[in-house]
This record gives sequence, structure tokens and C-alpha cells, in this order.
Amino acid sequence: MKNRVHSQEVTKAAKQRLLERGVTVESIAEIVYAMQHPFTPELTMLECMESVEKVITKREIQHAILVGVELDVLAEQNKLSEPLQTIVATDENLFGVDETIALGAALGYGSIAVTTYGFLDKNKEGIISKLDTKAGGQVHTFLDDIVGAIAASASSRIAHRIRDFEDKASEEIMLDKEEEELIG
Amino acid sequence: MKNRVHSQEVTKAAKQRLLERGVTVESIAEIVYAMQHPFTPELTMLECMESVEKVITKREIQHAILVGVELDVLAEQNKLSEPLQTIVATDENLFGVDETIALGAALGYGSIAVTTYGFLDKNKEGIISKLDTKAGGQVHTFLDDIVGAIAASASSRIAHRIRDFEDKASEEIMLDKEEEELIG
Amino acid sequence: MKNRVHSQEVTKAAKQRLLERGVTVESIAEIVYAMQHPFTPELTMLECMESVEKVITKREIQHAILVGVELDVLAEQNKLSEPLQTIVATDENLFGVDETIALGAALGYGSIAVTTYGFLDKNKEGIISKLDTKAGGQVHTFLDDIVGAIAASASSRIAHRIRDFEDKASEEIMLDKEEEELIG
Amino acid sequence: MKNRVHSQEVTKAAKQRLLERGVTVESIAEIVYAMQHPFTPELTMLECMESVEKVITKREIQHAILVGVELDVLAEQNKLSEPLQTIVATDENLFGVDETIALGAALGYGSIAVTTYGFLDKNKEGIISKLDTKAGGQVHTFLDDIVGAIAASASSRIAHRIRDFEDKASEEIMLDKEEEELIG
Repeated sequence: MKNRVHSQEVTKAAKQRLLERGVTVESIAEIVYAMQHPFTPELTMLECMESVEKVITKREIQHAILVGVELDVLAEQNKLSEPLQTIVATDENLFGVDETIALGAALGYGSIAVTTYGFLDKNKEGIISKLDTKAGGQVHTFLDDIVGAIAASASSRIAHRIRDFEDKASEEIMLDKEEEELIG
Repeated sequence: MKNRVHSQEVTKAAKQRLLERGVTVESIAEIVYAMQHPFTPELTMLECMESVEKVITKREIQHAILVGVELDVLAEQNKLSEPLQTIVATDENLFGVDETIALGAALGYGSIAVTTYGFLDKNKEGIISKLDTKAGGQVHTFLDDIVGAIAASASSRIAHRIRDFEDKASEEIMLDKEEEELIG
Repeated sequence: MKNRVHSQEVTKAAKQRLLERGVTVESIAEIVYAMQHPFTPELTMLECMESVEKVITKREIQHAILVGVELDVLAEQNKLSEPLQTIVATDENLFGVDETIALGAALGYGSIAVTTYGFLDKNKEGIISKLDTKAGGQVHTFLDDIVGAIAASASSRIAHRIRDFEDKASEEIMLDKEEEELIG
Repeated sequence: MKNRVHSQEVTKAAKQRLLERGVTVESIAEIVYAMQHPFTPELTMLECMESVEKVITKREIQHAILVGVELDVLAEQNKLSEPLQTIVATDENLFGVDETIALGAALGYGSIAVTTYGFLDKNKEGIISKLDTKAGGQVHTFLDDIVGAIAASASSRIAHRIRDFEDKASEEIMLDKEEEELIG
């Protein structure tokens, strides 16, 4: 038995779980683009995908993926004990542990991530909506919330980085101006 | 100097602050109604107002109101020190303390309150939208988030109570059935 | 297959899980007593047990118990997929989903519950310490955090109710005084 | 009137506020050292100070400092309206907005930061204890919690980075082993 799990193994497993459940980095990035593009017209899908990739490297997010998908799969296979089996399999509306786990992951990216997550939870878009339809006996009670949290975190990350970039840019502008005044 | 503030005084002050800033219990209840009515057609405005009143009796909510409105008013009067004054007065988008305080209040009503709060933060409705317009030099940087948290908490409260009621009702139905089987 | 799980069934299952895993209401109440007694000398164990019982009636707490114990038991039986199995079975220190779920439950009782939960997580007492020793191949990775959250919530509940009581008491004192002034 | 506040200005102001209120990076680092040293004997004060410096560059932390110190100073000068003035000046125990703001900042560094913050709130050490004594009419109702959050965040940051480093180190060890097997 292994003593400790290497970070690389956790990262690999987290990415695998998402793919096994039909969630690609691109599908999450599409939601990020929809959220951030109205504020930043020049934003590209590539930048959104990079942001999602970065978010998925965080331990808290990876652990949420592993736990959430495990519970969804076990519920799909009818392997949870009652009454938890029914609560998870029917995605009961007053069951909040799925949202708590997702929220805990989003909180790492600040209040913008939290409010965006809340919005995506009510206004299910793209892949989140697809996961939520429960087509063909699939259970995504935990995963749709976690995908929402990843999208919200990636959105918040972009908003903060754009501001950092703008601040640096204006700094260079100010330095240029100072140099000009010294010449002649 | 007073040693400790009586709860009644805090409750009274919290309600006064809301009214002084143009927020009535009814205006918050309208948002609650908009949120919950789709799920519960028989819900009345009176029930929504009662829920809002109940939420406003909670210490965490009252303290959030007192702190939030104090900071809004001080910013309106230009009495905060820089750079906080500008950050609050312009409702800077990457400033999150207003959302953190509101979120802390909503968290007392569970994950439904948190996600609803997030939704209302992005989809500003009714009184929240009015507060957010910043008309006439007014500052409601903190208050619009707190009102969102009150509305979200009241919505969550209703969702949980309706489920409690339905469960009790079905219990009576089950008892009736048992009695019937015993007769004759 | 059942359509919806009745609240009574969830309550019953949550209480059963705790007992099956060796956690009694009394053992949790002992921690509450240790936390609150220094502030309230006249506090009794009975009051602490009543507070714990009340906390265990909350949906968020019950759901956390069901999910947490399920994951602990599955890990004990080696039934989780890797690398989650090792992470949970060895109670890895950088694994935080157990704490997130517990924290989500404690947050329903305000900031006092959250800080008390944090304290109990570092200063493991009584039953929490017993669960954490991992004696005999048992896994309580999730349960020790959830018990901490229940104890912290019950402590916070007592602190708030004592304040409510003191405020009402002083109110009656004030009313008595007014009546006296009117006589004669 | 300025339109937007440059990040550099916010960073500068946040650091100044801490110093004006008697809090040095070193004093916070001492708490971090006390928390982490038992787990990592080779940890140095310099590493703790670097961690604190990094944490203080985060927007959420800086905003919490600006708001918290502003409220403390206004309370010290008796400039808040009642009943908030008394609640803040007497550091009322059921007032939780100070903890909510600090918690919101700590949450950016995950569940380890949150539980450590809770522990420091109950077991006040070093500079936190000094701020909490309220010597000479000073008010640090908000600041002692924020300093706790900074210390907790810096502690969590160190724990995660040490794990990252250990994982990379073992990776190099594994690569070395593979190379050796190929030789001869």
C-alpha cells in the first residue's frame, strides 16, 4: 500500500475523471468565455482554456473532482447506502453537500468566483446544463456543481489578471512620460 | 458609556438603517417572491414578507446591515481615508469585502441561500437594481449586496419550510391510512 | 424506487450512522461543555445535550453526516478508486474536502461556530481525539471533522441563546421598574 | 477625483495601515513560525516573512486590511454611529463581521488556512494577543482577526509549497534512478 500520493498522480486522476464523465477543458472554457467576454471583448478561447487548465492544477479543485465523481459513479451503480443513494441519484433540491464541496473549491478564487458560481448554479449553461439533464440514467449531482465552480474560478482568475495587466501597462505609460520630460 | 447593547436596540437600529436608505421589507419580499413563486405557485407576498422579517431578526444579518450602511454613508460623505474612499465610492468591481460580508450573512441559511445570493448579484432585480444605479451621488456599495443576502436567505428559509410542511402533511396521510386498515 | 426521502428517514439515518461509528450525543456534548462552561459556569450537561440534539435536526448537518460516514466506511472497506482510496484512508493532511463539508455545516451557526470548529480541528478533544487515532484500521477522516462541526455549532447555539435569555431578563427588569413608578 | 485606484497604491496603503497600527511583517511571521515549525523543523523565519509578504500582495487581503483598520480607527475616535460604535469599541463577543471579513480573506488559501485561523482566534498568540488586550483605549476589533487570517494564510501557503517541493524532489530522485538503470 502506498504511503502518500504524489501530486502528479492526483492531477492525472482528476483530469481523467472529468474526461470519463464527458467533460473537456474546452467545454468548461466555453462557459468562462460566455461569462468574461462581455467585459473583455478581446478575450480569446485559448486564454479561457489556459485559465481552466491552471485552475485544475489546484489541490482543492482536484480533491473536489475526485470525491464528487466518486459519489456520482457509486450512485449510478446503486452502491450507496440508503437514504443517501436516493438523495444523490435523484439530485434532491435541498441536498447541499454537492454545492458545499463546489463552493469550497470556488472560495479559493475570491468573492467574484463565489457569486459567479451561484449564478451558474441557477442559470445552467453549456456543459453544466448537459450534465444536469440526467440523460440515460447518468448521475452528475456533484459534477455539475464542480464544473460550475471550475468555470467560476477560471472567470475570477481572468478578471484579476486582466486588472494586474492593465495596472502594469499604465505604469509603463507613466514611466515613458517621465523619461520624455527629462529629454531636451 | 453603555456596557453592552441590548438586542432590541440592535434590531431597531438595523431596521431603521434599511428604511433611511430607501429599502422596505416589501421591496425585499418582492425579490423573494420572484425567486420562489416559480417553484411554489401558492406562495403569497405576505409569506415572503414574514420570511424577510424573520431573517432580519438574526444577529449576523443585523450586524452586516449596521456595518455596511455605515461604510456606504461615510463614503457618501467623503469621510473615508484614501484609497478606501475611492474604492467604495466607485463600487470597484474587484473590491470584494462588500460581497464577503453579505455572503457571511447568507451562509447562515445554507447553500441554497449562497447560490441564490450569487445569482442575485449578477442578475440584479427590483430594489437591488435600484440601489446599484448609484443615482444622485448615492453610495450603496455594501447595501445592495446585503439586500441580496437578505432576499437569498429569506428564499432559502421558504424552500426549507415548505419541505418541512410537506413532510408533515404526508406523515398525517400515512397515519390516516394506517388507521383505516385497522378499522372493520 | 422511492421518489423522495422523508425528513424523518434522513434524521433517523443520520443518528444511526453516528452510533454505528461509536459517536454518542453525550460524547459530543462533553466537548460543548468543555468549550462553553468557562464562559457560563451554570451551564449543565443536559443543556449541552439538548443543543447537540437540536443541531442534529438540521438538514445540512444530517446530509454532511450521511456523506462523510459513507466515504469513511467505503475507504475502510477499500472500495474507493485510487488515488482517492489512499488519500482518504491515510487521512492526508493536505486533503481538505472533509474539512470543507464540516465547515459548510458549521457555517449555518455563524462565525463563532467556524472559529470554534477551527480550534477543535487543531486541539482535538474527547471523542474527536478518539476518532482521530485511527485505531484498528478504522477510518474517520470525514467523521472527526463533522463531529467537530456539530460540537462547534452546538457551542455557538448556546452562546447566542444565553445572550437572548439575558436580554429578555433585563427587559423584564425594566418593565418591573416602570410598573413600580406608576404605583401610588 | 480619481477614477480607479492603481494596485500599487492599494498595496502601499495596506502595508502602511498595518505599520501605523503597530503590526510588522516580522510579528506576523513569528506566529507563522510557531504554527509551522513543529511540522517542518528546517523552516526559517526568513521563509515565514516571505510567505507573509506574499499573502499581503493579495487584493482580498489588502481590502480586508483597509476596511478593518478604517473601522477600528473610526471607533477609536468615537466617530461611528450608535449602536455600532459601542459594539465595535467594546469588541462584543457576538459581533461576527470582523471574523467574517477575516475568514473571507483566509478562505483564499483553503481549508488549512480556515482551521488555523479559527485556532488562532481562540488561542491568541504574539501580536494577536497584544492587539486583543485593548491597552490604552485602542480598538483592534477588526485588526486582530485580520492579522490572524494573514498568519493562517501564510501558514497554509507554506504547507502547500513544502508538499510541492517534496513532490518535485521525489520526482528528481525517480528520474535519477531511471537514468542509472539505463547506464552500462
